[in-house]
Amino acid sequence: MRRLSTQDQNFKQVFADLLAFETVNDPELLSTVDKIISDVRQFGDEHVLKLTQQFDRHPAHHFSELELTQEQLKAAFDHLDSDVRKALELAAQRIRTFHEAQKQDGWSYIDDLGNTLGQKVTPLDRVGIYVPGGLASYPSSVLMNAVPAHVAGVAEIIMVVPAPKGDLNPLVLAAAYLAGVSRVFTIGGAQAVAALAYGTQTIPRVDKITGPGNRFVAAAKRAVFGQCGIDMIAGPSEILVYAEGNNDPKWIAMDVLSQAEHDTVAQAILITPDEKFLEEVAQAIESHLAELPKAEIARTSIENRGALVLVKDRAEAIELINQVAPEHLELCLDDAQAMSEEIRHAGAIFMGRYTPEAIGDYCAGPNHVLPTSGTARFSSPLGVYDFQKRSSLIMCSQEGVKPLAKAADILAQEENLDAHARSARYRYK
Amino acid sequence: MRRLSTQDQNFKQVFADLLAFETVNDPELLSTVDKIISDVRQFGDEHVLKLTQQFDRHPAHHFSELELTQEQLKAAFDHLDSDVRKALELAAQRIRTFHEAQKQDGWSYIDDLGNTLGQKVTPLDRVGIYVPGGLASYPSSVLMNAVPAHVAGVAEIIMVVPAPKGDLNPLVLAAAYLAGVSRVFTIGGAQAVAALAYGTQTIPRVDKITGPGNRFVAAAKRAVFGQCGIDMIAGPSEILVYAEGNNDPKWIAMDVLSQAEHDTVAQAILITPDEKFLEEVAQAIESHLAELPKAEIARTSIENRGALVLVKDRAEAIELINQVAPEHLELCLDDAQAMSEEIRHAGAIFMGRYTPEAIGDYCAGPNHVLPTSGTARFSSPLGVYDFQKRSSLIMCSQEGVKPLAKAADILAQEENLDAHARSARYRYK
Repeated sequence: MRRLSTQDQNFKQVFADLLAFETVNDPELLSTVDKIISDVRQFGDEHVLKLTQQFDRHPAHHFSELELTQEQLKAAFDHLDSDVRKALELAAQRIRTFHEAQKQDGWSYIDDLGNTLGQKVTPLDRVGIYVPGGLASYPSSVLMNAVPAHVAGVAEIIMVVPAPKGDLNPLVLAAAYLAGVSRVFTIGGAQAVAALAYGTQTIPRVDKITGPGNRFVAAAKRAVFGQCGIDMIAGPSEILVYAEGNNDPKWIAMDVLSQAEHDTVAQAILITPDEKFLEEVAQAIESHLAELPKAEIARTSIENRGALVLVKDRAEAIELINQVAPEHLELCLDDAQAMSEEIRHAGAIFMGRYTPEAIGDYCAGPNHVLPTSGTARFSSPLGVYDFQKRSSLIMCSQEGVKPLAKAADILAQEENLDAHARSARYRYK
Repeated sequence: MRRLSTQDQNFKQVFADLLAFETVNDPELLSTVDKIISDVRQFGDEHVLKLTQQFDRHPAHHFSELELTQEQLKAAFDHLDSDVRKALELAAQRIRTFHEAQKQDGWSYIDDLGNTLGQKVTPLDRVGIYVPGGLASYPSSVLMNAVPAHVAGVAEIIMVVPAPKGDLNPLVLAAAYLAGVSRVFTIGGAQAVAALAYGTQTIPRVDKITGPGNRFVAAAKRAVFGQCGIDMIAGPSEILVYAEGNNDPKWIAMDVLSQAEHDTVAQAILITPDEKFLEEVAQAIESHLAELPKAEIARTSIENRGALVLVKDRAEAIELINQVAPEHLELCLDDAQAMSEEIRHAGAIFMGRYTPEAIGDYCAGPNHVLPTSGTARFSSPLGVYDFQKRSSLIMCSQEGVKPLAKAADILAQEENLDAHARSARYRYK
C-alpha cells in the first residue's frame, strides 16, 4: 500500500492527484442516459419493461409483474431468522430515534411594525428511493432512505430495486416492510430514475429521488434534477482514519479495509504521526487480506486509491482532513471530541477507539448516505431535512406595511420595475 | 387575457399545459455550455477574458481589469442618494433579521447505552453568488444572496456580475458593499459559473454557487453540480394570486403585472370564485398596461402564459394552488392565515390585502430567491441553511458499543461485507 509523508517534496501534488475523482463526466455515458430518459418519457411502462428484460434479464412478461405487493414484503419480514430480525429492528429503531431529532418545525415572529414573518415546514408528498440490486443490494440502505422520509411525514414512499434475473434479497424486502415503504417496483438503472422523475402509466411521478446507485443511476439523477429533487450525486465510498496513541493496528487495518471491500474505486486513507504504527497497520492489512472473501476488490482499492500518510503532528492532520472532506472520518485517539471541533468538513465523524465506521453503516442511528468525493464541503448526510421543505410566510398589517412599501417603491424604481413600484405604492399612498 | 373556469370540460388538460415549462433541456444549449466549461477548465483566466470580451463586449484587455476593489464598492455606496441608501439599509437590516432566525445549531444526545450521537453544523468555506447584469441587474438580488451567506458564517463570498460594455449598476456595487461581499468579478454567463466551480489562476474555486441567471447560467449550474453545490435551477418568475371578498381590482391587477413585467415567459395567474371581480381585474390590467413602461413584456407574458381562473369555491382553489406549487402566492382574503394552513407547496405565501409580492422582493425580510416551475414541491427559498451543512457525530463507549457491534456484525454478514463484520466484531468480542 502506498506510503506518503507530508515531508515528501511533491506531497501536495501526489495527494491532490490521489483524491481526484469524477463520477459522471463521460460523454458516452451521458448520451446513453439521455436517450433512456427520453424513451421512458415517450413510451412509459412498455420501455421500462423492455430495458428491465434487456439489462437485468428479468423474466417478467408484463409490467404488472414488476410491482411487489405489501403481502410479499410482510412475508419476507415474517420469514426472517430471529437474530437477523432483531438486528434489523434495533437498527430501524435507532435510525428512527436519531432522525426524529432532525425534524424541523416552522416558526414565526411579529416585527416592530406589527407585521408577521415566518417559515412554514412541510413534508414532500411523494418520494422515490433507489436501492441498488445484485451484489450491492443492502437492506441497510432501505432503512437509511425510507426511515427519514417516513419521519418527515412523506405520505408515499416509492422504492425501486433492480432484480437481476428476477432475484431479490429477501432482507431488502423485509427492510422495506419495516420502514413503511408504500410501493416497490423491481426496476433499476437510468430507466428507474426516469420513471420516478416523470411518471409512467403505472409508476407515479415523485417529488424527489434519493439513494445511491451506479454511474448510470448517478448520471440519470443529475439529468432529472430540476424536474424533481435529488439528494446528491453519489461517488465511491471513502474512509479516512486518523490514529494517534494507543491503537490496535489490527482494528485500524480492518476499519480501513471495511471501506476498501466496497468497491475497487473506494478510497481508504490512514493518517498518523506514528511511523512505527503506520508500518504495523500496513502489515495487518496484508494479514487480513489473506482471510477476507472480498480481498481482490479490497486490494485493488487500496493499491489504486489508498494511502498511508505520515504527518508531523495533529495540526497537519487536521489540515489534510479538511482538504479531503471525507465521507467517513474516524478519529482514533483519546481526546477525539476536542479534535472533532477542528474538523470543518466531513460526512460523519466517528470518535474514539470503540466507534468503527461499520457501526454507522447499520445501527448507530445517523444516516449512512453521506456526501462523497469531497462534497462534504457543501453537503450533508441524507436526513429528514431532505424530505421537508420550507415556505416563507409574510403578512403585513395595514399600518405596518407602509414603511416597507415605501422602501420597495424606491428600490423597484431603481431597478426599473414600475409595476412592482406601483403595486407597493397602492399600499402606502 | 385567457379566462379559464374549472367547469370547462377540458380544464385539467388546458391548465396542465399552461404550467408546463422546461428550462434547460435544449441539446444545443447544453453542448455549448459543456464546451465553455471544458475550455474554462483548460485555459482559465485567458478564456474567461476572451468570452467576456466576446459576449459582453467588455473593454478589458487584461484579466485583472475584471476584478473590482473594495474601494470601488465603498465609493458606490457612499455616492448613493440618501433616500435610496436608507431604503437599501432598511432592506439589508430586515433581510438579516429574518435570516438570523434560520440559523441552525448543532445538537447531541447520549443514548441509553452511553453512546453520544449528534449533528455538527458548519458554514461553507467559500461561496460564489451570481448576480445577473444588464437589464436584470438587481441590487436586491445581491442582498438576498450575500446576506444569508454572511449570516451563516461563510468566510469568503465571491460575487460575479456581468458588465455589458463595461457598464455596471452602481447600486449593485453598493449592495455588495453593504452585504459584506469579499471579492467581485465583472464576468457572467456559463464562463463565470465554470470559473467559480473549478477555479482559475485568479478566481478561487468555490464550494457552492447560488443566484439566478439566464438559461446559459442555469444550464452551467446544473452541469457543475457535484463539483460544487448549487442552490437550484431557476426558471421564469411566477405569481399566483387568490382573491376572495373585498379586494380592489386595481391593486390585484398591479400585483399580477408585477411578475408579468419581469419576463415574457413569466407566469401570472389569478384564481377567484368571483366572476364579476375576475372581469374587473381583466379590465384593470388593460388600463394599467396603457401606463406601464414594460407593457410590451408584461402583455406577452400574460397573453402567452397568464390566466384568470374562475373556481367554484376556496377548496377548489387550494387544490389548484397545491398543483401549481407557485413561487409567489398571494392570499388576498380576510382569513388568509387559516387558508395558508392548507397550502402544502409554495415558495413564499403573502397573506392579506396589505402584503403585495413586491414587498417580498425587496424588504419584507424573507428571501426573494424562490423555487420556480413547481419545484416548491421539493425545494425551499434560498436561506441560511443553503450556506451551512451538517456532519454526523458518533462516539461509542467501550460498553455501549457492544450491542451495536453485534447487530452490525449480523447485518454485515447478511450483506456479505466481511471486513465490516470483523471490524465491528473486534469491538465486542
